[in-house]
Amino acid sequence: MSAKKTTQVLIGGKVYKLSGYEEEDYLQRIATYINSKIDEYSAIDEFKKMTSDMKATLIELNIADDYFKAKSQIDKYESDMEQKDKEIYDLKHSLITDQVKVEDLAKEVERLTAENEELTKLKAKLEASLEDALLGTGSSGLL
Amino acid sequence: MSAKKTTQVLIGGKVYKLSGYEEEDYLQRIATYINSKIDEYSAIDEFKKMTSDMKATLIELNIADDYFKAKSQIDKYESDMEQKDKEIYDLKHSLITDQVKVEDLAKEVERLTAENEELTKLKAKLEASLEDALLGTGSSGLL
Repeated sequence: MSAKKTTQVLIGGKVYKLSGYEEEDYLQRIATYINSKIDEYSAIDEFKKMTSDMKATLIELNIADDYFKAKSQIDKYESDMEQKDKEIYDLKHSLITDQVKVEDLAKEVERLTAENEELTKLKAKLEASLEDALLGTGSSGLL
Repeated sequence: MSAKKTTQVLIGGKVYKLSGYEEEDYLQRIATYINSKIDEYSAIDEFKKMTSDMKATLIELNIADDYFKAKSQIDKYESDMEQKDKEIYDLKHSLITDQVKVEDLAKEVERLTAENEELTKLKAKLEASLEDALLGTGSSGLL
């Protein structure tokens, strides 16, 4: 864990000393974000008329709204990822099944090819023997 | 879009009238969340001594911190999902490739099986003809 550090941030025109473990850059980004909310509201007349408590609460509500919307986005993504993981699992399963099919068929092709060669050789031998036999009968002229 | 409605929420012991399009239940959950932050800090002596402005800003910072952490979680999930989508794309591609292989090999098995049947028939015919030819030579006794 990084060492505890003190960072000065400017929020709503006031300087605040924050001490903690967060990086200064991170705290400045948060401060900028809060200030953008304050500026956004400060443009509205209704807001100008509010007590500082009401103003603060409205800003808190608005930031919390961003947080809740981000959280529901996270929930959505988590269920999307669950779906994707399931799809990946199913695809991998189908892939393995197909790879087994490919291997089995390749073996079958190999077996049939060998059998085929054997039969072709045997056929050639039989043709030769038949030719000899027919020649032996002097019927070669008929061939 | 649902109609604009007014909801009363209790935040930091004060009642606020919120008018907007959000559901009451949602706004109450946000109020509860902000109150839990306030209660959390109210237990700390240092916080009790702060001005209401400082208190409000600290709460804002704390809520904004939750929001920023949720946002970085969203970023992480988005890159995770990009990865998963890529994996799904690649798996589908491999699956199609393998399915084509399966089809081609199945055709080859069919072709070779037919060819072998033909050769087996031909072999049987040749064997028969050879037998006849040999019988013709009267050498059947030798068979």
